[in-house]
Amino acid sequence: MGQIKSEIIAVGTELLLGQIANTNAQWISQQLALSGIDVYYHSVVGDNLTRVYEQFLQASKRSDVIIVTGGLGPTDDDLTREAFQRLTKLEMVEHKASMEKIASFFRKQQNKMTPNNKKQARTFAGAEVIKNNVGMAPGMIVTHQGKTWVFLPGVPKEMKPMVTNHVLPALTKRTGEFSIIRSTMLQFIGIGESRLEHELKPIIDQQSNPTIAPLAQDNGVAIRITAKADTSKKAEQLIQQTKTQILDGVGQYCYGVDNETLEEKVFQLLKEKDWTLAAAESLTGGMFSDKLVAIAGASAVFSGGIVCYDTKVKENVLHISPATIREKGTVSEACALEMAANVRKLLDSTVGISFTGVAGPDTIEGQQAGTVYIAIVTKNGNEQAEKFTFAGDRAAVRRKAVIKGYEILFNYLKL
Amino acid sequence: MGQIKSEIIAVGTELLLGQIANTNAQWISQQLALSGIDVYYHSVVGDNLTRVYEQFLQASKRSDVIIVTGGLGPTDDDLTREAFQRLTKLEMVEHKASMEKIASFFRKQQNKMTPNNKKQARTFAGAEVIKNNVGMAPGMIVTHQGKTWVFLPGVPKEMKPMVTNHVLPALTKRTGEFSIIRSTMLQFIGIGESRLEHELKPIIDQQSNPTIAPLAQDNGVAIRITAKADTSKKAEQLIQQTKTQILDGVGQYCYGVDNETLEEKVFQLLKEKDWTLAAAESLTGGMFSDKLVAIAGASAVFSGGIVCYDTKVKENVLHISPATIREKGTVSEACALEMAANVRKLLDSTVGISFTGVAGPDTIEGQQAGTVYIAIVTKNGNEQAEKFTFAGDRAAVRRKAVIKGYEILFNYLKL
Repeated sequence: MGQIKSEIIAVGTELLLGQIANTNAQWISQQLALSGIDVYYHSVVGDNLTRVYEQFLQASKRSDVIIVTGGLGPTDDDLTREAFQRLTKLEMVEHKASMEKIASFFRKQQNKMTPNNKKQARTFAGAEVIKNNVGMAPGMIVTHQGKTWVFLPGVPKEMKPMVTNHVLPALTKRTGEFSIIRSTMLQFIGIGESRLEHELKPIIDQQSNPTIAPLAQDNGVAIRITAKADTSKKAEQLIQQTKTQILDGVGQYCYGVDNETLEEKVFQLLKEKDWTLAAAESLTGGMFSDKLVAIAGASAVFSGGIVCYDTKVKENVLHISPATIREKGTVSEACALEMAANVRKLLDSTVGISFTGVAGPDTIEGQQAGTVYIAIVTKNGNEQAEKFTFAGDRAAVRRKAVIKGYEILFNYLKL
Repeated sequence: MGQIKSEIIAVGTELLLGQIANTNAQWISQQLALSGIDVYYHSVVGDNLTRVYEQFLQASKRSDVIIVTGGLGPTDDDLTREAFQRLTKLEMVEHKASMEKIASFFRKQQNKMTPNNKKQARTFAGAEVIKNNVGMAPGMIVTHQGKTWVFLPGVPKEMKPMVTNHVLPALTKRTGEFSIIRSTMLQFIGIGESRLEHELKPIIDQQSNPTIAPLAQDNGVAIRITAKADTSKKAEQLIQQTKTQILDGVGQYCYGVDNETLEEKVFQLLKEKDWTLAAAESLTGGMFSDKLVAIAGASAVFSGGIVCYDTKVKENVLHISPATIREKGTVSEACALEMAANVRKLLDSTVGISFTGVAGPDTIEGQQAGTVYIAIVTKNGNEQAEKFTFAGDRAAVRRKAVIKGYEILFNYLKL
């Protein structure tokens, strides 16, 4: 078991000005922890050649694996390559595939490539080049004087797939055997964090491996189970046992494992029943529909929706009766039920869901910001509507309404 | 003008495990930048006495002001005091007011105070003690061998009021006169980062104050202008001059300043013209509409939309002609134009916009993932449609399509 020391260096003045948080270091640390690689330091240094060089020099003395994010772009501010070259005197070469990709990008855009873009295709001789499937600059893994250096772009969506698909497998191979940590998350909704912790207290108290930690989330609560073992098989067995114990107690609130989302669960439940869904969205303005369409294959269960933010659209497209609007208002149980029933019929679906309410900051029809009605109506005649009062600003009210909509569907469909 | 160098050190293994992001460093950096204090480094080190000590030793050599967060709590893992004592040999004393507060807390809770809690009241002799109005451990400002050390709790709600009310005023006083830093961002779309830098190269090369830095963003590109001066008025004048120079060159691509979003700009332009907008969304599934509804007061310009993810909805609700679907397919310029025209009519709006395409991963009607048509049709008979090929996964294709839709509207409405 050769335990290796790693550190993460982020290069970028924008971090030192506080314009963004170093979430890259957080995410990479999580991934390394799961692979059993200890992280000893995070550092952030600005776009300054001497200071980046000095940070690299220090890292070369104290760590086995050094992961560097940022500073690989085309501009004069991007100095990661230059600083590493000053440290190692390694030769740089043009990486053909990357250069071809950059040139082709500019051809497709019918834009002239400015000379500074060529810099992004420059890699260290002997480096393992990691293809960038999202942006321009490739990543690199360089071995130098027994140390492993990993260079990654600072843009998270370019960096993350490189870590998952290349860096972790490469590091695991290089470091050989080490103690394995495996972790899983169980996702719950409809039960509070303290209630969940209370129900699970006997299990939590008797456990040390795996450990069980409740975490408040935007979408309900999660339980993280973390097991250590010599082999991944043993670690996974430990997790499986604890998972079964937990689900025996509070399984009815569990909608998913790891990164499974509530909308994915609703998608699956609809698919199992061979049902389709249609949405009428007022204050949520398309956010509910967007989350379903984000799932590949959504068309199998999602017919579509009407964003009826304007009252005229409620009347003219959704055909809400003028009497309902006059007598009950658009923010009412009656209107929510008609919206759900009519969108279901209009889009010829099994279930209709509707959202109407006051996102704020202003009141509507004398109702306070945060007041929201959500209704579901099914083809076989079930209908339910509920009133909610959500705290927070406009964005929070809209987000909470959408999550609650999925919770209502989850509770209805799981039966 | 004594420009001082500062750095921020966070102590805590939870950061190195990726359980939380170092948002403290981000927030403190923002505060220091506004006070004209340069931050040169962020570091994170775990709860290990030797490593914390070494980090402190390094900081004492390279920075004038060292801000340390975390490691002041009651447990054996909290080692900030011990590490600083090892470095400075300063004596520690019990801070009476803090000790009394801790004791009173345990009395109120009718809990026995465990001895380790006393540790939280220990402060360095000669330190300026900062009261903790939220939690237990006080903060400290210590001057040692010409360097200013600031020790703060790691819990953000305890740390932040200490910085605002004590640390910033104290640093300002100690450093005497210093330069003010002001920063602004100009947001661009329709011009790439390297092209923008190329166009602005003459301005960038001749400038040292303000500095001009291009930044790639999800929504186009931004230029950060940062000016230093003795007074905020002078700093703002410098920014204004540079802003005018930049906008003279590439102003037609600029949609906003600082945090203004592209959708807010589109919202404003619609409002100025007193126009309304309706959206027909297939692959974007409500995401375009959601971004507009997120803006307070959106109802003045946004009628609503149809999420026509399913072909049946395109036919039955949007009334796309069967001939178009049969002969051209749903992913076609003809279909996009009909969608935009029909949603505009159906929702009685000035402008209709439509999105149809292949989000992926699968192909549709023989068209590759990433193929997207976007059309706009106006009441006064203007119509335009364009085909795009977006790279990336399903989420990227959908996001890029939505941004492109706003870009098309921006270009059309700004004329």
